[in-house]
Amino acid sequence: MIQNRVDSLLSTMKENDIPQILITDPSSIFYFTGEWIHPGERMLALYISLEKENKIFINELFPVTADLGVEKIWFKDTDDSVKLLSNYIDNNKTIGIDKNWPSKFLLKMMDYKIASSYVNGSDLVDYIRQKKDNKEKDLMRNASKLNDDAISMLINNISNAKNEEDMAVELTSIYKDLNTSGHSFDPIIAFGKNGADPHHETDNSTLKPGDSIIVDIGCIKDSYCSDMTRTVFYKEASSKAKEVYNTVLEANKKAIAKVKPGAKFSEIDLAARDYIESKGYGKYFTHRTGHSIGIDVHETGDVSSVNHETLEPGMIFSVEPGIYIPNEFGVRIEDLVLVTEDGCEVLNSYPKDLKIIG
Amino acid sequence: MIQNRVDSLLSTMKENDIPQILITDPSSIFYFTGEWIHPGERMLALYISLEKENKIFINELFPVTADLGVEKIWFKDTDDSVKLLSNYIDNNKTIGIDKNWPSKFLLKMMDYKIASSYVNGSDLVDYIRQKKDNKEKDLMRNASKLNDDAISMLINNISNAKNEEDMAVELTSIYKDLNTSGHSFDPIIAFGKNGADPHHETDNSTLKPGDSIIVDIGCIKDSYCSDMTRTVFYKEASSKAKEVYNTVLEANKKAIAKVKPGAKFSEIDLAARDYIESKGYGKYFTHRTGHSIGIDVHETGDVSSVNHETLEPGMIFSVEPGIYIPNEFGVRIEDLVLVTEDGCEVLNSYPKDLKIIG
Repeated sequence: MIQNRVDSLLSTMKENDIPQILITDPSSIFYFTGEWIHPGERMLALYISLEKENKIFINELFPVTADLGVEKIWFKDTDDSVKLLSNYIDNNKTIGIDKNWPSKFLLKMMDYKIASSYVNGSDLVDYIRQKKDNKEKDLMRNASKLNDDAISMLINNISNAKNEEDMAVELTSIYKDLNTSGHSFDPIIAFGKNGADPHHETDNSTLKPGDSIIVDIGCIKDSYCSDMTRTVFYKEASSKAKEVYNTVLEANKKAIAKVKPGAKFSEIDLAARDYIESKGYGKYFTHRTGHSIGIDVHETGDVSSVNHETLEPGMIFSVEPGIYIPNEFGVRIEDLVLVTEDGCEVLNSYPKDLKIIG
Repeated sequence: MIQNRVDSLLSTMKENDIPQILITDPSSIFYFTGEWIHPGERMLALYISLEKENKIFINELFPVTADLGVEKIWFKDTDDSVKLLSNYIDNNKTIGIDKNWPSKFLLKMMDYKIASSYVNGSDLVDYIRQKKDNKEKDLMRNASKLNDDAISMLINNISNAKNEEDMAVELTSIYKDLNTSGHSFDPIIAFGKNGADPHHETDNSTLKPGDSIIVDIGCIKDSYCSDMTRTVFYKEASSKAKEVYNTVLEANKKAIAKVKPGAKFSEIDLAARDYIESKGYGKYFTHRTGHSIGIDVHETGDVSSVNHETLEPGMIFSVEPGIYIPNEFGVRIEDLVLVTEDGCEVLNSYPKDLKIIG
């Protein structure tokens, strides 16, 4: 177990009066143990307690040989894995449950009366995971550095001989050459009016002069995710396109300028949104400004108008305002930022000034 | 809504005394409505009731325009989606919950006392989904036909210039050329001793004379999954390899011969396992004999020693015995079978006799 992380969890559990917790999300288990275990539909659970001994429950189909610093309790497919928990969990106390644990397990725990009550325990784990430690900051910097390299190669190679899918395939091989573990999400490559859909699925569209090209990509390196977006123009850009581009760029910069400990996530969102609204494009900025990121590409901590949580050093999230003009084009500019003691560090360095290629 | 499927569910709910059910698995929602909606971390729920009106609850970020034959209740990201359920669900009655519904939703439902008690409702839905209707049988036949075509092309093109990953990449393009929607699972291509791990992750290993080549692949066509395995040998096969191959082949055939209505899943498993044990390889057959399949590649209904459920017409599952000799090689032979009125139909037709290539 990674002791500083477990210690943070234990003190947060104490503060919140949750004496025991069952962590079942594979990425949270990786966070605390350093080991990836993918149990598929089977049970996998790390039990952390203020009073009893910590344990990890694993199906013997997943033969984890590493010493995880916590006793492994093995079970077989033919065992009742949930019943097994009752030998270790304090059945007179509340237990925190992982937000995404399949209900079939929770319903069985309740049937067997394995704890006295059940609460969502993910808030505690997610809160700790939001604040990256020094090792994580370095891994996040490195993943973003590789993503900068990748986007540079990809944009340098754009030509009208390639459709969106060709570019996505090329990115797969760039990520392989850069020794990453591949994509952190399905890349979005959107030409011209396809870019007006923020979640466009890359297809076989080809380039026309004047098209905007949205490139929203991320890789995984050493289990940490990167995520960035740049928008460039092919051959030419209309004056409207330039105005929209510079509006989004300014919104991105204004939001980033607000990032520091004590600010609220909603204030970061507001900085981007207010500026875009002041330019008359408010109704075309249709999504939240960003999301937290780390081991998972989307972690708890939205940069949105309804999240009034306060920024703390170590938090890492995206700042990705966009303007989407239906049937015309879209522009999005996204960087990852790390909250520092007195401001923030931007993890992406690929240039953001308006660029016309080809 | 697809009425025959909803009717089956309603009568199963009546028999099992579950008056209302909340279906949240996207593939089950597709099964009942014909529409794929991928809500990610957001709530999506189809409410089916014996007494109240059916409804579907959708976040307006997923603008489903099709008429689903059930009233859509829309909500926004800023709404409390779980609270919204209380306006429609009978809070004096038990409700069935989807086995994989994230616990965060269930815990909130319980906090709000939206029903009087909560049970795992997936058994009912899964039981209906196990018995494919005529339309589904045709789709399953077609997906398996395409998989037969794919494996034929892939095996015909094996050469020692390709490593395992190259074959996997080639398969991706074969599936594309065949107009499928791609893989139903990450293909397993395992050369020589890699094949001794039934879940080997395809890597850059290359072929040596005498290697077994396990090819375990599946595609999705029209939302239905195929899955088959063949094992061939490169250049030559040792007498031990031949003996193991023929043992697995005979086990595959003996198990398939037992498939008919009224037989138990465990009897199918036993037929394969007994034969492999009789040949002295029992301890090298380390997994269940098969799994049910349809919209999902793994559906409820294991072909295992502990599943004593009875086969019924329309059920489709894999029969995939294997023998894995550590540090030497592995052999697995897998077909999909459809239970008919008086026996079964094998959905794969690619030959199974021992084949030496190259």
